[in-house]
Formats: sequence, structure tokens, C-alpha cells
Amino acid sequence: MLKKIPKILSPDLVHALMKMGHGDEIVLADANFPGHSLHSNVIRCDGIGIPPLLDAILELLPLDPYAEHQAALMSVVPGDPVVPTVWDTYRGIVASHDASATLAFEERFAFYGRAKSAYAVVMTGEEALYGNIILKKGVV
Amino acid sequence: MLKKIPKILSPDLVHALMKMGHGDEIVLADANFPGHSLHSNVIRCDGIGIPPLLDAILELLPLDPYAEHQAALMSVVPGDPVVPTVWDTYRGIVASHDASATLAFEERFAFYGRAKSAYAVVMTGEEALYGNIILKKGVV
Amino acid sequence: MLKKIPKILSPDLVHALMKMGHGDEIVLADANFPGHSLHSNVIRCDGIGIPPLLDAILELLPLDPYAEHQAALMSVVPGDPVVPTVWDTYRGIVASHDASATLAFEERFAFYGRAKSAYAVVMTGEEALYGNIILKKGVV
Amino acid sequence: MLKKIPKILSPDLVHALMKMGHGDEIVLADANFPGHSLHSNVIRCDGIGIPPLLDAILELLPLDPYAEHQAALMSVVPGDPVVPTVWDTYRGIVASHDASATLAFEERFAFYGRAKSAYAVVMTGEEALYGNIILKKGVV
Amino acid sequence: MLKKIPKILSPDLVHALMKMGHGDEIVLADANFPGHSLHSNVIRCDGIGIPPLLDAILELLPLDPYAEHQAALMSVVPGDPVVPTVWDTYRGIVASHDASATLAFEERFAFYGRAKSAYAVVMTGEEALYGNIILKKGVV
Amino acid sequence: MLKKIPKILSPDLVHALMKMGHGDEIVLADANFPGHSLHSNVIRCDGIGIPPLLDAILELLPLDPYAEHQAALMSVVPGDPVVPTVWDTYRGIVASHDASATLAFEERFAFYGRAKSAYAVVMTGEEALYGNIILKKGVV
Amino acid sequence: MLKKIPKILSPDLVHALMKMGHGDEIVLADANFPGHSLHSNVIRCDGIGIPPLLDAILELLPLDPYAEHQAALMSVVPGDPVVPTVWDTYRGIVASHDASATLAFEERFAFYGRAKSAYAVVMTGEEALYGNIILKKGVV
Amino acid sequence: MLKKIPKILSPDLVHALMKMGHGDEIVLADANFPGHSLHSNVIRCDGIGIPPLLDAILELLPLDPYAEHQAALMSVVPGDPVVPTVWDTYRGIVASHDASATLAFEERFAFYGRAKSAYAVVMTGEEALYGNIILKKGVV
Amino acid sequence: MLKKIPKILSPDLVHALMKMGHGDEIVLADANFPGHSLHSNVIRCDGIGIPPLLDAILELLPLDPYAEHQAALMSVVPGDPVVPTVWDTYRGIVASHDASATLAFEERFAFYGRAKSAYAVVMTGEEALYGNIILKKGVV
Amino acid sequence: MLKKIPKILSPDLVHALMKMGHGDEIVLADANFPGHSLHSNVIRCDGIGIPPLLDAILELLPLDPYAEHQAALMSVVPGDPVVPTVWDTYRGIVASHDASATLAFEERFAFYGRAKSAYAVVMTGEEALYGNIILKKGVV
Repeated sequence: MLKKIPKILSPDLVHALMKMGHGDEIVLADANFPGHSLHSNVIRCDGIGIPPLLDAILELLPLDPYAEHQAALMSVVPGDPVVPTVWDTYRGIVASHDASATLAFEERFAFYGRAKSAYAVVMTGEEALYGNIILKKGVV
Repeated sequence: MLKKIPKILSPDLVHALMKMGHGDEIVLADANFPGHSLHSNVIRCDGIGIPPLLDAILELLPLDPYAEHQAALMSVVPGDPVVPTVWDTYRGIVASHDASATLAFEERFAFYGRAKSAYAVVMTGEEALYGNIILKKGVV
Repeated sequence: MLKKIPKILSPDLVHALMKMGHGDEIVLADANFPGHSLHSNVIRCDGIGIPPLLDAILELLPLDPYAEHQAALMSVVPGDPVVPTVWDTYRGIVASHDASATLAFEERFAFYGRAKSAYAVVMTGEEALYGNIILKKGVV
Repeated sequence: MLKKIPKILSPDLVHALMKMGHGDEIVLADANFPGHSLHSNVIRCDGIGIPPLLDAILELLPLDPYAEHQAALMSVVPGDPVVPTVWDTYRGIVASHDASATLAFEERFAFYGRAKSAYAVVMTGEEALYGNIILKKGVV
Repeated sequence: MLKKIPKILSPDLVHALMKMGHGDEIVLADANFPGHSLHSNVIRCDGIGIPPLLDAILELLPLDPYAEHQAALMSVVPGDPVVPTVWDTYRGIVASHDASATLAFEERFAFYGRAKSAYAVVMTGEEALYGNIILKKGVV
Repeated sequence: MLKKIPKILSPDLVHALMKMGHGDEIVLADANFPGHSLHSNVIRCDGIGIPPLLDAILELLPLDPYAEHQAALMSVVPGDPVVPTVWDTYRGIVASHDASATLAFEERFAFYGRAKSAYAVVMTGEEALYGNIILKKGVV
Repeated sequence: MLKKIPKILSPDLVHALMKMGHGDEIVLADANFPGHSLHSNVIRCDGIGIPPLLDAILELLPLDPYAEHQAALMSVVPGDPVVPTVWDTYRGIVASHDASATLAFEERFAFYGRAKSAYAVVMTGEEALYGNIILKKGVV
Repeated sequence: MLKKIPKILSPDLVHALMKMGHGDEIVLADANFPGHSLHSNVIRCDGIGIPPLLDAILELLPLDPYAEHQAALMSVVPGDPVVPTVWDTYRGIVASHDASATLAFEERFAFYGRAKSAYAVVMTGEEALYGNIILKKGVV
Repeated sequence: MLKKIPKILSPDLVHALMKMGHGDEIVLADANFPGHSLHSNVIRCDGIGIPPLLDAILELLPLDPYAEHQAALMSVVPGDPVVPTVWDTYRGIVASHDASATLAFEERFAFYGRAKSAYAVVMTGEEALYGNIILKKGVV
Repeated sequence: MLKKIPKILSPDLVHALMKMGHGDEIVLADANFPGHSLHSNVIRCDGIGIPPLLDAILELLPLDPYAEHQAALMSVVPGDPVVPTVWDTYRGIVASHDASATLAFEERFAFYGRAKSAYAVVMTGEEALYGNIILKKGVV
């Protein structure tokens, strides 16, 4: 633990966030996400929900103002009646760090494709449905 | 995540618990413990307090009935007025899994020495003072 | 060995099952399966038949209710008079853990192709003909 | 699997048996043995009892006729009322392969010391008390 | 060295033979074969001719009865007057282990292609021209 | 680069600072220090003087209030007329982050010994004589 | 540090410059460049601006007189009003080492493509916009 | 150093020459050749010219009598007035070991392509222009 | 294979012989020698007797004229009636390469100790009793 | 190759020289020196004599003015009539770079001991008797 760095963030996660550059993306994945089969650079955060992790990451990570959207969610599969309430929580946290940030939606398999080319995947303990979120790093 | 295995436990932590044998010890270390300089086999659980972790581990890990004590705490340094309240929490959790288990006390440097020869050290987010605990594995 | 985890499962196998996510597949392969040439992530369970292993795995592993079929067998090669009786055993074990699960059939080379993209291959001591089975992980 | 080699033996176990030389020892350890903390070269045989494994190994492994004893058991701790019946099974299996072989007894910690300097430790699924056995390789 | 396993076989070679499955192939290559540039899994048997090695391998390795041919030789390049007499030796050894086995012929570059997708290449000390042979593993 | 983390700090340096625990030490070494022969965990910061690095590190790193001294300098070798002016700079920087911190002095070879058991050595571009400094981590 | 070699250059950077051959390129990247996602061979020079690094590198590195241009900058994205003043600094430094050298301009994604096939990427602390520069090695 | 093996040859170079088979090629590259960006298997012979190295290698390495040409040079780029005199030296050395050997010429980029698929690249200290040479191994 | 280098020697064995210096020793061990438990640098020559290997090695390896003895055998254990006839073969081979060389005798455990500090151990297929021999390298 | 760095020096050798600090030593060893058995960090310079290498190294490496002697030779073994003439060459080269440098003499086994604790050993092609030399790095 260090001063100024949220205690919830592991050394490996901060290390990855620091090595990312402008335009690189990181996936905060829910507990059922197939992260290890999609990516070789996986950081485990078992037992921790995405809201506190997202909040802690955004204390350090600037979002990309040059991109059309600064983050992305997985859109609900057509026909699925689920209404993900966690999105509002995510939107509130993102807005509290970057008021102008907007979130894109990616269809399930497009989301997987983007996860494959991300810089890293963070496996969390988040259990909310459609709870994955991709963040795009900006400049400092 | 799997059925029957507490969700808070990471794959690496369960892997270590399974490879431990009778008499092997594991250290649940507080967030300021110098785990990486004492041991080469460190499992990170940043952001998670020891109580829920201890409870989840003891759902799986049997304690050693052949040992005099099944767990160990770091005793308060002479002169230090701190009265660690977290110990009662630990005692309650341990008792709920193994009613006959007792806890030993180790002086600070003896505790470090025991940590060095443990099977692994788990770095948690626990912030309570004197919050470290060593568990000794029994038989199944 | 740990409480609640079937003793037949090795630490490496539980580790793999835990790291798998929704939709990932694992192959339980018979003793003659060319697992090492098809996959780089092979877990050896020499000397153990698939029925007890399948039963133990399904105590922990949820099957995927969103998929059309939760498991897959290799269909008998046209012209081959073999009638695999082990399938009934498999069906019984699967049903005892997940009553609504159904099994698909894959032609031999399609089965190999699916094995290549699985998360891992488990080499067992199963000697029954057409004894391989693929399991698709669900959510917890 | 190959002809002449018992199917229960894994490739890694046969590999180790072949690399051992005259006088080298291998430990067949019960399921609670702390193999990973005693040794860096551990071969897992979860789910398999020692009797069939011992029988299969002795089909390949010659015992050392130059040593006073060809194998060693862990002696019962003084005061422990246990009478290990598995020893008779072991004696029968050893005798069926090498009629002149005799078994030594090692006190618990002497046994651990010998395990540390063995060539390898095989972690089995054997659950019998005092079920560990050390084998000393002879010449071919 | 172990009982039942031909002494000429190295631990690494037996290890590879054991890990091969039904349909996997292994190349016994003559001393001038470019094994290291064709394959990353090369087992050296310098100084040993193929006949004794082939004989020893076939004591353990079953050939594939389901394939059209159980082994393959490199056919003589058109125009080359060489008449490889070693082939008769190979045929005799193969027949002594598997009377129904037949040998295919592969044109030089087709042979190289098959070597690339084999499970392993064994570099021998064989000096006979056109002395390479591919073996296809069967079931036990 | 991230918000809140001084830009001069590399990902590897922050990673090391985060993994250090209470009582662990880190050496900021001048450009001529034999860091690679004293330690296996060396972080290079070529071209950067210690003052800005010290200031940046202390923005994140808490010093140990339980130790007698929070930092240590290498004392001037007896007979050497050098009067290290850089020490005043160091004292000022340390004081600006932790007003109660004091600096110990270690004789040259005692300093080397302490460097050997530190968590890591940072090789800087500092060219001032007697410019090395050891920092002892506190708690957050 | 050694005589004749600028002190700002790390051992790893000099090592890379020495291993480069005629026509190989190296990227000096600004602090926000996504170097780690574009390249596996990244050398960190956190906290150091490109001008002193460029000057130090060109003391050792000859530029390629056979190429049309000896270096390349990333051209301003159409519509972006930025006028990178750091380019004049770069031009002056390059000219002071190689009077006949000229700089090409690459569109942003063409620049990324060239970075991917470069010999290495140097992550610097340069904060100027459009501050990346590629150098092409000549002959000695 | 060993008897019969020219002293100028390093252990790694002899090791590579021994592992090469019939038809494999090795590149002796001049001091400016981009060997490390073309190939992952590079053997350094800094400070040594190609003539003595070529002579030493040909004491051990047989050239391929079945190929149309046994070696290859990089042809002069059209328009370049250079007349490489080192070629006569090379021809003389090759002829002294294999009177019937002939040298092919490859256009610059065809030469690079062949270097990429060679078994290894030897980086020498040769400074002559157009001084690279490829050798094709024969049989012993 | 290369010209001048005996075909029986593997690339790894020649590599080791070349890296040895004045006074370094190599053990040619019989097929039952516990080479892997005594040494981490083991070169396998399964299936090959020591006489042809010794002869081939001495074509390349100079023996140490400065040592009292150039080679060493393991002396017969007191009471053992064996009269190792292979020693005469060894003496003849050694004498054919170095007429003035003499052989020392080491008691069994002293021989093991010397093997531990040798440069490498060569595991051969030699089956003669007391067939091990240590060679001490001289200068070229 | 780079400007200012002598062409005879390999990238690995310059890398090692740069990582050495004040007081670290490097051994330039003759061609028969047992470098690989004394040290794990060996840099090969086969085929190159020590004089040109020493001269090139001293263009970059400052010697230690604080030490009693800046370099060390291996003294002639008592009784050996050899008079190493290469020492005069070494003295001349050292003096041309550092007029005040002096050379110590170490008895053979003391020299070996010092080599073991050096930063690296450079294996050269030097064939002169008593041709080894140790250099102690100073400050820049």
C-alpha cells in the first residue's frame, strides 16, 4: 500500500495501468467472464465488485477525450428481458471522475473481440448481469 | 467460480490450499505485512479483509487436531497499549468451523520466522493492527 | 485435499476449472486421445476412469444453461458397429447433477477441432471406446 | 499408454523412475503428506491408492539388493494406538516382486528427512494412516 | 534403466512415446536429417542406428491398425539409382512386432511436411541413405 | 503515466514500492554504486538525480515511524575530506514529507550489508559523492 | 557508467542500439505512446525528455545515409491546430550530428505500423505533443 | 578449446553447426547486418573477420553437393560502383575446402528472405562491403 | 554431424567439452549411476557403452598433464570379489591417446563427491560393474 | 556497432561493463581458464587475444583509483620456470590508459577465488601462459 493509491488496487493492476498508453483499453470483467481463454494478460481481483474497483481505477486512469466514447458496455442480447441496473452505478462513477465521458454499447461478440485486443483483462468478483465494462485510457 | 467453493477465493489461493499437506501453515497477512521480502510464494488478495477470507478458507481447510494450537496470532509488542479487537472476530470465525481449535501467540520476530517457513503468505487488505494469523492444516 | 472438494480432483484440475468462464469448454479424454498434440494445456489423470471424474467435476462445475447442449460426445464413425455403452453412464451422471442438460454429438474431426479451442484437455485412464466428453461451463 | 508399461503410471512418473539411479529413493506419499513443502520435485497421482501404484511401479523398478532394507515405512508415533493394516498389503505386494526385500521403519521426522533427500515424491490418493512408503532403486 | 523397458531408450524418448495418442506420429530420422529446423521437439539419439532403436520402440509402441499404413518411408528421388537395402531390415523389424503392418512411401518434400506435424523427431546416428521412417501410434 | 503518481516514477519502481511492507527498505543508489553485484532486484533510473526521485517516491511512500531512524546515509570514510552537500538537499526533501523523520549514518561496508538485505536497489544517475540513501517503509 | 558513453543512456538501451543493424529502426516515444501494446521490446526511460536522449543516442548511433530520410515524425492529424515546436528542437539536434539528415512525416497509423516493425520502442518522459521520433540506423 | 576444432569457433557456434542437417543454411553476416531483427537465433562473433571464420567453419562443415550452388553472396545493388574484392578471398577459401563448390548470387532482399529461413545467423566483425555469405550444409 | 568430430558425440556433449577449462572434470557414468540426483548438468547417452564414447571424447579432449593423475576410477568396495575387466579396456583407450596418462582410484563415496563438483555427468549405457570414469581436462 | 565504442566489444560485454559499479571486478580469462565452472555470468570472446580486448575495454572502463591496485595478474606457480612476456604488453596497455595504475599478483587459487566473486568472466582466445587479468572498475 502507498499514499494516494487506492488500497483496493493490487501492485499488478497499477503496474498494468501505468504501462498502458493513449488509446489502450482495459476490461473490467464480471466473475463469469471467460477472461483466461480470451487473453493471456489477466489480473485477478476475486471477491471485489466492479463499482469500488472502477472508482479506484478512475482516480488514477484518465479517460480518452479524443475517442467518441470513453468506455463500453456489453449490450443486452436481443430477447433477453434483463435490465442491467448496475449500468447506472457505472455511469455515476464514471461521471464523478469525468463529466463528459460517454459509454458505447457493443454486441456480445464484438465485445469479446475488443476484449481480445485490450491491454489486459481484470477478473473481478462482480456478479451483476451484463456487468463488464471496457475503459479507454487517455493522456496525462 | 465454482459451486461449493466460496467466491472470494482466487484460483491461486485454492491451488495453494490444495497442495498443502498435514502440518503445513499458511499466513493471512495484513496489508502492511512485508510478505514479499519474507517469502517467495505470495498470493495477493488486495482489498479484502481477513474476516471474510478466514471464513471462506475454513470452509475448505481442516485445522490440525494433532497440534497443540491450530492457529497463531502475533502477540502485542510489550509496551504497546493496543488491544486488538479483531482477535475476537477471528476467534469467533475459527470456533464456528472448529469448536476445539485454540490460538497460540508468537512474539513479533518469532512470527516472522514462522512466516518464512510457511507454505505461502496471503497478502490481504486487512488494516486492523496485529491482524495477521497463521493457520495449520490438518487432515481430511 | 480439502473439505467439500472431491478428493479425486488434483490441484491443477481444480485450478483450471476455476479459471474457466462462461462458455469455456473442457475435454475429458480417454486414454488414447492425442491430447498433447492437440493442446498445450493438458492435465494428466492417468489411471482414473471418466465416470468418477465426471461425477466429481460436476459437483463443482455448473453447466451452461444458455447453450443448446451442455456437453458433447464423439459420434460413432459411420460403418463402425460399436455401440458405446459408457454413454449411458455419462448421461446418468450428468442428469444427476443437471436434470435438464442434453448432450450433442460431434463427428470425429469436428470433435478434434472443438478440443483444440477448449480451455484444457484432461487425459484420463478411461478405456471405453468413444469415451471422450466435452463439458461447457455455465455461470454460478 | 504403451505396451508393457502399466497404464496407471503417468509419463512424468515413468520419466522420473527412469532417471533415478542405483540408491536413489522415491516416496509414495499418502494424501495428507506435506510433499510440496518438503520437495520441489513432486509428481501428483491424486485419486489413486498406493497399493495399485506400488504394484505397477515394482513391475518396472528393481529394488536395491545391496542395501540393508529395500523400502521404508513411517513407524507409529509412540502412544498412538493405530495398527496400520495397510502395511500387510504393502508387504505382500513388495514380496510378490522381490521375495527377499525387507522394510525398515523410520521415526516420523527421520522419515521426513529422508523424503527431503529422495529423488522425487509421489502424492497419491492413499488415505490409510501411516500409509507412506519409500522405495530404494537397485540395478538392472 | 527399468525392467521391461529396452535399455537403449532414453527417459525423454519414453516420455514422448507415452504422451503420444492415437494417430500421433514420430519420426526416426537419419543422422543428416534437418530435424532441428523442421521441429521444435527433437530427441537426440546420436551414435545409435535406427534398426535397434526401431526394434526397441516397437516393443512398447502399438502401431495404428485403423490407418491405411502404419509407417512411412521417404521414396527415392526420381533419377537416383540408390536402392535402399535398409528398408528390408526395417520391414523385418516392423513385421516381427506387427505382422499386418504396411509401409507407405512419401515423396521427399511430402515427407518433410509430415515430419513438421509429427509429435516429435528422433535424431539418430543412422547413416543409411533414405533411412528415415515415420511411425503412427495405435491404441493400447 | 497516471493521475496522482509522479511522472518520473517508472511502472517497475511503483510496483516495487507497492509490494514492500512495513520495515522493508529500498536503496536509492548513486550512479557508481555496485547495485547489480549486491542485489538481484535492481531498478534502473539512469539519467535521473536522486533529489527529484526522492521527492517523488516520498509522495507515495510512508516512512516508518516505529524505527529509530527513517532513512540512512553512508557516512564519510575516515580521512576523506569530502563534505557531502547533497545531504542537506535530502534532509530538506525528507522533512517536507515527514517532519519528524531522522537519518542514520552507516559506515560504508555496513551500508553495503544493509543494501544486500533491502527489498530493491534503484540505480539512479546521481553523481554527488556519498549520495546513496536508504528509505524504510512505514504503514499506511 | 562508462567513459565516452553518455551517462543518460541505460545499459539496456545501449545494448539494443549495439544489436541493431543497417536499416533497423528505433522509436523514441512520448510519455503517452502505447508502446507496450505495440511492441514486446520496450525500454523504459521514464522521467527523461526526448531532446537530451536524442542527443545522447546520436553521439553513438549513425543514421542511414542510404535511406531517403534518416528519421521520421508523426504528422499532425488533419484539423488539429497544434504546431509542434519540439520538432525544431529535434531538427537542430539531428543536424548537429548529421548535417545531411532529413526527416520524413508519417500519418498517425502509418507511424504505429512502422513502430510495430521497429527493433525497439523507448518509452520516454517526453510530454510535448507529436513528440515521437523514429531513427534509422546507418553503418559504422 | 578442444583438439581438432579450430580455436576461433565458439561453443555455441559449433553447437549450431552440429545441429544443422542436410540442406540447412547458416549466414555469416558482416558487422552491419540486421541479424537480430531478421532472426531469433543469432551467434555473436564480434571482432572477427569472415575469412578466418569461414576457413575454420569449412574445416568442419561439409557443403551440399546436391544443391546447385553450395553458398550464396549478396549481389551488388544496381548502380552501386562497388567491386567487392572480398569475394575472391571467399572463393579461394571455399575452393580450398571443396573444389567443386560454386557460389550463387542473391539480390539484396532475396538474400534477407533466405537469411530469415536459415538455421542461424552469425554476426561477425567483417567490415568489407557486400561481405555476407550463406553456406548450405551437406552430408557427412 | 561434422567433419573431424566423432559421430557418436552429441551436440550437447561437444558443447560441454568445449566450455570446460583447464582442470575441469567430466564423469562418464555407467547406466546405473545416480547422475540426476548428484548433478544438475547431465548429458544422456543412453544405449552407448563407455569404450567407444571414451575413445571419441579423447580424440577431442586433452588430458591434464599438470595433475598427478589424468583420470579416476571407482575402486572396488572392500570385500567385493569383482575384478572389473573393463578397466583394462579403459587403460588401453586412454593410453592410445595419451601415453603418459595415469588413473587414480577413488573410494565409492569420494568418487560421488568428485562427481558432484565435476563440470558435467554423462549418463551412458555402459553395464560393466565399476565402469565409471572421471576425466580431467588439460590445455590445448 | 556504434560510434565511439570499439568494434571488438560485443553488446553483451558492453552491457556488463555498464552495469558494473565502483569496486566491481571483471576477469579477462585466457582460453584455458575454467570460467564456466567458476562463474555463471560468462561472456565469450573466442578467437580474440587479450591485448586488443584489454585496450578496447580500457577506452571505456575507468580503473579504481581508490584501490591499492587497479588490476591483478596470476603469479607464477613456485617452481615453474615460465616468464610471462605478455605481462609487459598488459602493463603497457594499462599504462596508456591510466598512468598511475598498478598491478597486484594473486597466487593461483586466490586468483580463482577472486574470479568467483567478480561481476563477470570474459573467456577470450588468449593463449599466452599466465595470461589472465582482473580489472577493478572505478568511478566516472
